Formats: sequence, structure tokens, C-alpha cells
Amino acid sequence: MKPLIVKLGGSVITDKRRPFTVRRATLTRLARELAAAKGPLVVVHGGGSFGHPVASKYRIAEGYKNKGQLMGLSLTHRAMERLNAHVIEALQKAGLPAIAVQPSACAVVSGGRIQSMELAPIKKLLGLGLVPVLYGDAVPDLRSGMSILSGDQIVAYLARELNAFRVILGVDVDGVYTANPKKDKRAKLVRKITPVDKELTSLDVAGVKDVTGGMRSKVKELISLAMHGVEAEIVNATKPGVIRKAIQGKRGLGTVIVRR
Amino acid sequence: MKPLIVKLGGSVITDKRRPFTVRRATLTRLARELAAAKGPLVVVHGGGSFGHPVASKYRIAEGYKNKGQLMGLSLTHRAMERLNAHVIEALQKAGLPAIAVQPSACAVVSGGRIQSMELAPIKKLLGLGLVPVLYGDAVPDLRSGMSILSGDQIVAYLARELNAFRVILGVDVDGVYTANPKKDKRAKLVRKITPVDKELTSLDVAGVKDVTGGMRSKVKELISLAMHGVEAEIVNATKPGVIRKAIQGKRGLGTVIVRR
Repeated sequence: MKPLIVKLGGSVITDKRRPFTVRRATLTRLARELAAAKGPLVVVHGGGSFGHPVASKYRIAEGYKNKGQLMGLSLTHRAMERLNAHVIEALQKAGLPAIAVQPSACAVVSGGRIQSMELAPIKKLLGLGLVPVLYGDAVPDLRSGMSILSGDQIVAYLARELNAFRVILGVDVDGVYTANPKKDKRAKLVRKITPVDKELTSLDVAGVKDVTGGMRSKVKELISLAMHGVEAEIVNATKPGVIRKAIQGKRGLGTVIVRR
Repeated sequence: MKPLIVKLGGSVITDKRRPFTVRRATLTRLARELAAAKGPLVVVHGGGSFGHPVASKYRIAEGYKNKGQLMGLSLTHRAMERLNAHVIEALQKAGLPAIAVQPSACAVVSGGRIQSMELAPIKKLLGLGLVPVLYGDAVPDLRSGMSILSGDQIVAYLARELNAFRVILGVDVDGVYTANPKKDKRAKLVRKITPVDKELTSLDVAGVKDVTGGMRSKVKELISLAMHGVEAEIVNATKPGVIRKAIQGKRGLGTVIVRR
């Protein structure tokens, strides 16, 4: 059975303005919404105010340059595990047998891109009925020493390799806009994106920047996924019920990214 | 450079009589002793009062039999992560850039034995100078659905695959005894074990039983390792300074397990 992959954005489940602050009520609500999934489910979450400040401080995304970054990688990974623990425990409370799968332990990363990934444990977990939970992570990198592996890249990789039937990306805006909707009132929501879309150049300005590249890199990952035949939708996970509806099969809640 | 592998027994770093109780002072001391390592270091720890009670309750070691065990696997793994977080943070405080590596994410296990393991991330971490920390874990199992992967099996597997120069197993007794030293006053410490040792049959009674088999299974793993050419020593990690001395190269502190 093909799995559904749901990503919970770091800016949804944490307060990005305050380091190490989880949005507990939101997380509890989202865990209950995720429990609406009937078939195999993979959850991926971002770093938000846990991973990003530490990763930035130690310049993990720039690769290995000095010994001080070793403790930086250690601390960034630990920060992500702390956030992941909140997610796992929220899912458990909602009745989902969730289990953390560390990308840094199973992904072979080179130049910031996943070269391969040990998928046998994830496949077995899904087959049993467990919910593997992965996350954006600070990882050892064969070429640059260390790098940041975004949750979005993990989503796209898993969707291809596990032959996902659908991907849902929960963010803190209604979808992809022609400009940053938090700053520009003329920003328009884009309902559908296909690989040939001319509009894509204008999406360059639509992203809120963070260490993993914001909306622009999300769309890039999902377009490559659409070309592979996997449909994705970017929806607003801060609005109650949206993730649940998306999981139950509703389309058109945000921005759909499809092959045609 | 060949790595040193040190195992911290679950009964050393936790209070086995009280669920979810970490021995904080002991862990802080051991973290400082581990900081004496000059070269590449891998740390593995057991489950103690974190993993074992939950694993026993849900009969994880017996394999998948009913749906209730799915939440059991989820909770057992989470319990191990909680203990692992204590270990990682103690190592960080002692100045070691430690990073958790989940066995359940990178090991392919079948019938309770490691079939293969994604080692590229661990090798890269070691090459950079980080300290990978693994632990006994509840894992998906290709044959039985789920099983318990002991820290001892992980130690032996990694020692072989990473070509370790030495293995140190820290336990809560002085080494391997001819009987259980906690119950039998006639129990004698065995100074050296080689694969041909006739004494081995008498070691059958020397183990305190837990879900991973106690001392008997430790010796079994280490003998197979000795046959592979890797020397191991079982020492008392509850005695201050013993792990440090062992790391600094001292032999004969407990029970040495060697090829001849």
C-alpha cells in the first residue's frame, strides 16, 4: 500500500521568534488531525526555532571549516532531537504509534543532497503499521564534512523511493504566493503549479528565508517530485482542520503541485 | 585510525530497581573519564531501567504478535531515546561532541541479528572527530516483525566492521565470574577468556538475566569478536577511574577476552 507523507513545517509547530519554543496546543491539534490517516503514514517535520538558531550560529550549512563546528553539529542535532521528542510524544498521545527515524543515522549525504538512504527499517515499520517520523537534520556530509538536510528534501526523497501516493506540506501560510504574503498585500495565492509554469520565476521572491531556503526550495523539491508523478499540496497547517481535510482526500485547500 | 569502542552498561548508568532513573553523578563522572580518549571513540550504552521495563511489558523480544505491540515498540524506542538524551548531554558537558545514532534507523535486523548496517554516516562522524553514540534499541525486524537489538551485539558488530583496536565493556561488577557474585560468595573472577576456554560452560550461571541476556550473552558476543582478532575487556565502570585507566591503555582491570 502506498504511503501518505505529511510534512509539518518548523514555523507551524514552533514559535520562530523565540528559540526552543514549541507550540504545544498546535502540535496536540495536529497530532489528532494526523490520526485521521487510514493507511500507511510518514511524518516529516522541520527545525523551526530549535534547529535553525544553533545551525546558524555554528554555520553548519557552510560545511566543515573548524573544530568548533564539531560541538555545533552535536548541539544542532540534539536540538532537533528535542523538538522531535515533542512531536513523537504528541503523536503517541493521539494514539499513533510513532517512531523517530534519524536522517543523520540512515541517510548518506554528499554536497547537501541525499545520495542514498537505508530504507529497510522504514519500510518494515510502515508494513507493521507504525508511523516513522523524520526531520530536517544536521548531518555528516561526505563532500563538505557537514550540512543541513532539509525536511523538504527528505519528503521529496521518501516520496520517490517509497512511491508515495500523495504529499501534504503543512506551512504557516495558505500556500505559495507570488510575493511574500506577510509583507506584500498584492501577493496572490497560486492555486496550481506544474513543471512548465512560467510563473515560477516570480516565486523567487515568495520565500521567507531560513537556513533551508524557505518556500522557494520547497517548490523546487515538489516540482521534481511532480515530474516523477507524485502529487503534492502545500496547505496552511495553522488553520484547524486543514491538515485533516487534506489527509481525508480533499484537494484545492492550498497550492497543488502536479505534473500537468 | 582505528576506533576505540566503549560500552556503558544499563545497570551502571541507571538504577535498575527504579524505572526511568538515571544515575546522574555516575554518568557525569563517566563522561569525564571518556574524555580521556585520544583517538576516534564510539560509545554504546544499554537500556537499564529505561528500555527493559517497557520492552518486557509489551513482549517486544518475542516478536510481533498483536497490534498492541505497535505502541509498545513506539514507547520502548522513546524510552531509550530519553536515556540516550541524558548520555549525550553528559558527554557534551564533558566537552565531547557526541551525536546519537539510532540503531533502529540504520541497522537492518532479521531474527534478532544485525544483517547489515548503514555505516557511512558513522564513519564520516568518526573521521571528523565526533563521537557517535549508539544504544540497545527496540527495532523493526525483517523476520519476526520486531526485536530487541542489544548494545552488546551492536558493540561486536561495530568492532568488526569499523576494525576497532579495542573494546571496553563497563559493567557493575569486576568482570566475568564463575557464578553470580551478587548471590554466590564462592564466585571467582575470571581474568582471561579465550575462545577455547573449557570454563565457558560454568559461565552459563554467571549472568544476571535481563531482556538482552546478561553476562552470558556479552561473553558470547565478545568471544566471536576475539576470534575476529579484536581484544575486549569487561571492567567495573561503577568504580571511579577504571574506565579512564582502561581507555588510557591499562590491561588486566577486569576480564580480558582475547583470541589466545
